[in-house]
Formats: sequence, C-alpha cells, structure tokens
Amino acid sequence: MRDTQALASFLADLRYDAIPSSVLDRTEDLFLDWLGSALASQGSHPIPLFERYAERMGPSSGRARVLTNGRRTSPYFAALVNGAASHLVEQDDLHNSSVLHPATVVFSAVLAAAQDLGKSGQDLLLASVAGYEAGIRIGEFLGRSHYRIFHTTATVGTLAAAVGVGKLLDFNQEQFINLLGSAGTQAAGLWEFLRDAADSKQLHTAKAAADGLLAAYLTADGLSGARNILEGDQGMAAGMSSDADPARLSDRLGTRWALAETSFKFHASCRHTHPAADALLHLMQREGLGHEQIAEVITRVHQGAIDVLGRVTTPSTVHQAKFSMGTVLGLIAVHGSAQLLEFRDLALTDPRIAAFRDKVRMQLDPEVDGAYPARWLGRVEVRCVDGRQFSAAIDEPKGDPGNTLSRPELEAKFQRLLAYAGQRSEAEGRALIERVWQLRDAQSLADLH
Amino acid sequence: MRDTQALASFLADLRYDAIPSSVLDRTEDLFLDWLGSALASQGSHPIPLFERYAERMGPSSGRARVLTNGRRTSPYFAALVNGAASHLVEQDDLHNSSVLHPATVVFSAVLAAAQDLGKSGQDLLLASVAGYEAGIRIGEFLGRSHYRIFHTTATVGTLAAAVGVGKLLDFNQEQFINLLGSAGTQAAGLWEFLRDAADSKQLHTAKAAADGLLAAYLTADGLSGARNILEGDQGMAAGMSSDADPARLSDRLGTRWALAETSFKFHASCRHTHPAADALLHLMQREGLGHEQIAEVITRVHQGAIDVLGRVTTPSTVHQAKFSMGTVLGLIAVHGSAQLLEFRDLALTDPRIAAFRDKVRMQLDPEVDGAYPARWLGRVEVRCVDGRQFSAAIDEPKGDPGNTLSRPELEAKFQRLLAYAGQRSEAEGRALIERVWQLRDAQSLADLH
Repeated sequence: MRDTQALASFLADLRYDAIPSSVLDRTEDLFLDWLGSALASQGSHPIPLFERYAERMGPSSGRARVLTNGRRTSPYFAALVNGAASHLVEQDDLHNSSVLHPATVVFSAVLAAAQDLGKSGQDLLLASVAGYEAGIRIGEFLGRSHYRIFHTTATVGTLAAAVGVGKLLDFNQEQFINLLGSAGTQAAGLWEFLRDAADSKQLHTAKAAADGLLAAYLTADGLSGARNILEGDQGMAAGMSSDADPARLSDRLGTRWALAETSFKFHASCRHTHPAADALLHLMQREGLGHEQIAEVITRVHQGAIDVLGRVTTPSTVHQAKFSMGTVLGLIAVHGSAQLLEFRDLALTDPRIAAFRDKVRMQLDPEVDGAYPARWLGRVEVRCVDGRQFSAAIDEPKGDPGNTLSRPELEAKFQRLLAYAGQRSEAEGRALIERVWQLRDAQSLADLH
Repeated sequence: MRDTQALASFLADLRYDAIPSSVLDRTEDLFLDWLGSALASQGSHPIPLFERYAERMGPSSGRARVLTNGRRTSPYFAALVNGAASHLVEQDDLHNSSVLHPATVVFSAVLAAAQDLGKSGQDLLLASVAGYEAGIRIGEFLGRSHYRIFHTTATVGTLAAAVGVGKLLDFNQEQFINLLGSAGTQAAGLWEFLRDAADSKQLHTAKAAADGLLAAYLTADGLSGARNILEGDQGMAAGMSSDADPARLSDRLGTRWALAETSFKFHASCRHTHPAADALLHLMQREGLGHEQIAEVITRVHQGAIDVLGRVTTPSTVHQAKFSMGTVLGLIAVHGSAQLLEFRDLALTDPRIAAFRDKVRMQLDPEVDGAYPARWLGRVEVRCVDGRQFSAAIDEPKGDPGNTLSRPELEAKFQRLLAYAGQRSEAEGRALIERVWQLRDAQSLADLH
C-alpha cells in the first residue's frame, strides 16, 4: 500500500500555490464545460425523477443548489441531482488513459460541498484538482480489465468525488486513507444497462458524486475505512480488475498534472465514436465525397469501443443513438455534424442516417488497440459506390489535449448547451461564463446556479 | 434471463394469503430479532455518526423513524441509520447457504418505506417475505466466489432491500425487472475493511438498505434499469462471481420458503465461529473439562471461515474480537458464554482469554467445506495438558432452523439486547415484544420505534 500512502500524502499536502496557472485555467475551462452539460439536461428524462426524489427525501432548505431547478437543499442531494444532470447529454469531459469522465462526479460533489461549507472559488479549484488527480490515477490503476465490465466513471468516480470533498474539508493523510476506504467500498456501476438503453448512466454519476460526498462527511466525523482498499487482497483491484498496476497510483505526483490531459467532447456522442467521426469527416472533406457516394465504412477501433458500442445495432432512443457508431458516422456523413440538436432532431428519424448506419462496421485494429487508452486513434477505410477506396487517420481527435478547444470555442459550446435546454437566455449564459472565468477570485459560490 | 424473469414474476404475483402461517410467524420472529439488534446499538460508535449525518443531510420531519433516537425523517435516512444500527452488535440473523444477513437490509428499508407510505403490518410482512425470498436466491446465485471478496449482505442486500420496498409499492413484473437493474448496478461492498477493524460493515448495511430504497422509489417514478443485471454479460455475475448458478434464482419459487431457513444468532460473534463454539461447549460439558486443562484446540472449518476470520490474529477492538476464532472459543471455554456483555467486558481484558486464544488453530476440513454453505458443521479436536485427546461434532448450531430459538428464547434475547444499550426499560421492551407478536393485525406502523 506504499502507492496508496503516497497518493494520500500528496493529496493532504497539495496547496493552491503549487498548482501551475495553466492547470488552474484548464480547471476553469472544465468547470464551464461541466456547468453547461448540467444545464443542458434541464427537463430531459430522467433528470426530473432525480429532482423529485431529492424533494421527497431531502430538506427543502440548505446552502447547496440543484443546478437544473435552482432549488436549495443539503449538499448530498445537490451532488446527486447535479451528478445525474451533468452526464446526460454526453458532452462532459473525458480523460483518455483512465477512461474516466471526471467533471460529472468531481464538480458535482465539490460545488455542492463548497456551497454547504461556505468555501471560495480558490477552495473549489484546489479541491477539484485533487479529485481529478486522484480519480485519473485510480482509473489508470484499475486498468482496462475493470472497464470491460464496470463503468469506471461510476466506480472510480465515487473515489474522485470523495477526494474532492475531502480536500475541501482539509483532510490530512490519515483521513484521506480512511476516505479512500469508505469511498472504495461503495464503488459500483455495471455496463449491463447499455444494451437496454436504460437510465443507469445517470444513476451511476448521481450516486458516485453523492456517495463520495457521503464518505467525506462521515470520514470528517470519524468513520474509519479500509486502509488498503485499492491494493488489498479483498479490495477493489482484487474484486474488480485483473490487470491493476499500483505504480499508476503515484505516477509523477506533483509534476504530472493529469487534469490537463483531459479531453473536451466536441461531438455529442460516446467518446469512443469521436476518433472515427473526425477521421471520416476529414476523409470526406479531403476527397470531396458526399454520403450517397459511400458504399461501406470500416472503422478500425480498440477493443473498448467494441465492448461499449458493440451492443447497439438499431438504436431505439436518442441516448442509445449516441452509442451507435453507425448513427454517429451517419450524422457526420449526411449533416457534417453530430451535435445535440442533430441527435435530437435527426438521428432516429432521417432515413439517410439509418441507411448510412448499415454501411458501417467496426473492426479491431492491433495498432489502435495497442495505443489505447493513452491515445485514441481514428482510422477509417471507405469504399465508394464507384469502387474507389480511401483511408484516413486522425491521431488526436478534436478536444484532445493537443487539439483542445479554445475559450471562444468553449463559450460557443456552452451557449449551444444552454440553447438545447431552452431555459436560459444567451445573456444569462454570458453572465455565467464571466463568473466562471473569474472563479479564482470568487469569495462565495452560494448563488452559483 | 429466464430465471430473472421467473423471479420477477413470482415477486409481482406474491400475495399475503399465499404465505404459510408458519412463515409469517417466523417473519415476526425475525423482525423482533432485528428490532432488538438495532436498539442494542444505541450510542455505540459509529451509529451516532450516521444519526448526525442524517440530521445534516436529511429533513427534520417525515413519517419514517430512526429507531436509535426516535427522530422523524424521510425514509431514505431512516433506512440508512437503521441499516447501520441493526448490524453493529452482530446479533442479527443469517441465511446459511446464501451467506446473507437479510434482516438488517430488508427490515431497515421496508419499515422505513412502510411508515412513509402509511402501510399496515400485513403489508410489511408481505414485503419482507419478498425481500428475503429474492435476496437469499440472489445470494445463492452469486455463489461462494462472490463472498470471497464481496460482502454479500452489502451487495445482494441492496437488491433484497429494493425488492422489499418494491413489493410495498405493489410493483408488477416489469417494474421488478427494472428495479433489479437499478439496485444491482449500485451493489457494492468489499471485505478489505476487516483486517483494519474499520467501520465499513455499518456503512455497507446502511447503504444497502438506503440504496435499495432509492432504487425502488426511482423505479416507481419511471427510472429504467438493465433488464438482465444478474445474468448478463456485463452484469453482477460477470463482474463479481466466477461460479454463478442462474437456476438458483428461481429455485422452487412459491413452494420453498427460504425465509424459514434463516438462522438466529445465539453467540454475539461472527457466525463463522458458532459451529466451533457450540462443538467446544458440548465437548467441555461432556468431558467435564475446565479451560485450564486444555492445551490445544483445532477447529476444522470451511474455507469461508478462514477467509473472513483468518485476518484477525490479535484483536484490538471488541468488534474485531467477534471475528477472532480464538477469542470466541476463549470466552466459551472460560465463561461458558459469548454474549454481548462478555464481549464488551471481558474479551479484550481477561488474560485467560488471550491465553486460550493462542491455543486455537483453524484447519480447512474437506467434509465441512463440502457441506458449506448449505450446512455449517462444527468440528473441534481438543488436546489436554495431560495428553488426553477428544473431539466433538455439532451438525446444527444453536439458532439454525433445525435447532431454532423459541419465542421465549427470542424474548429473552431481545431483552438482553435492550439491556446492553441500557436505554429502555424491561417494560418498554415487553411492550415492543407485544407489538411485534401482533404485527399482522397492526393497521399503522407510524409510531413503531
């Protein structure tokens, strides 16, 4: 458990001043992206179910806020609803090599607790960096075998959220060790729901954020946890992984900022579709092809893409369409874009998309699979109706750290997310953007919603 | 998923009138035993932490009750605190072949929801039977490999609690299928905490009861879940078991009443110690031996006992002492009894017990291991200081279905549990006992606490 102790020590010692300015900038970028993702889900199933559940089970006053309806409540329920909300439209961030979506779990828990505890913007940024750094390393530690069955953002997300809240509570090393124990033993979330297009993805992120917060508050009050929950004989790796690598837990702590490796989502679909989407778009533009000229598309992918996307043949819901490689490439081919509005209005109804979908096949590619999950390579081969064949390769999909979104691009995406829900004006969006760009100077987060 | 569907169909169709009277009697017995177990924990760490957490995060009014402090709140928090409380003193029930403690998860969730929904005693009994029948079969389905790493009462407990609440909500087959999906994907709980004597066991049962209730309320409002969470390629068995047997899920539904196979705990220790404790007590009485005459005790056990108890060599807390085979046998040998008061007052302080502890060894026994978990056989071999050797065998430890506790024995145990906490008088205990023996006639459960 040397690596767990090193991680806990790093988390306890981490100070705001030690975080590079570029990492703080990126944290604000990620926070804005998360906030937009949460607000985009206003009114969409199943978010109102979580809102009603919070009203039924939680208090009707408190210092934390439910973003989607502005309601005050205790931080447990704010984390729960915001965790459900911010992962619904599949526009929140992703860290490649851990296959973790950190924002939806970390920010949901940290903002709720920061509001409850009367913390500042700097406190929130510091706590969020702690949550990202821990969560990403724990996800890398559990490895690819974990992700085959378990939804890493749910399982590891519980620990990432817990660490963020623990940092807000100024935990020492000993408390972080206990916190990891109490969070890790709650870690749950199975991929089985995917093939039924069930609502569990929202349940997963809701529970990860809320359970992590629960672990932190109970740890602060003296609840002890297993001291070796990650590496122990009856711990997470023993039960839920066959290729765990403890050295990843303490990988370059304090010099590598894993948060800055996080990718923004450009397309509104499962991230596993993005490399192929970018490669196909590039190929069609390069060759001047229209969708009707294409007879077949082979996307050469990593095994994880097949595990997650292979379940969906004919999508029956918009959410499932985001996990259908053929549908995503159909939107790209026919409309040149796979954003939220295209999914909602066209993915299931445009017959050209259904037709294109049936032309798409995934094939496991050793090179792509070998590079994954550190790099998500896009490789497509296209056969045209007239017999011509083309191929294209993209090594860094749009939104990846080396091909990231600029602040103007992030602002435009944020406004698209708000417009999708249709509940807030562009001016309201502008005001929220300004608040986030000044997050490190905010004394209070009480009315951020 | 044929077996899952059969189970869901049975749960939807189950009617109060179809449950044999003897099973209803036993359900009342189990409920009393659970109530005493919860009340025994009043004031003991870590229960006040859960009470404070509920006050901080939950509402201060509501129709459900926290048993340990009488406080009103929403059913989520009542289930949470009561789930933590009722497993603390290790006196609640156990089902052998599933290695599940059903009461702490099922009754904690069902009573809270029944109070919230204004249900009757008959409703509670029906819902509890549903929770037991489902939970026990799911535990048997996941098998021994699951229990090696995962705390079945935590993982399967989430589904058992969910099913109980779902029955109160009068779910149909389709709702039960969705409910199993939403509960199963939250199932968590690792044994790693045991070696540190950490507080996770209470966290596990608290969360199982509360998360199961959460799944049921959200399912009632329309949340969908994976349709094959138990048997599917990315479901519970795929991720958390290597010897799952789907046929167990639908084993003799409607004719076998698994609830009636549940054992009461007589000794206040981990159930894995009970067969050896009974066998040793029997041997010492039969041969007229005192503890000072014994040089060595070998207990022949099943592998599960070694997995759970093998971690503890020198216990440092009372709770850990309950997982120390040597300490339990020491209490039996020196004091003839291993009840709550002996554990609290003697287990860690009496030097004769520490001395006896070092004479005890566990040895894997093929016959015992082969019979487990359907039967928990007790086999001990004793070597005396004077060189004599004896052995004894017990095939049904006290509290097992074939050697169960009578109502007078259960009442005496209930009063011992209340006396342990010292918060309620014997007359108050008597009044609670009478209420439970009339449970099936109760129109309201509002003031049961």
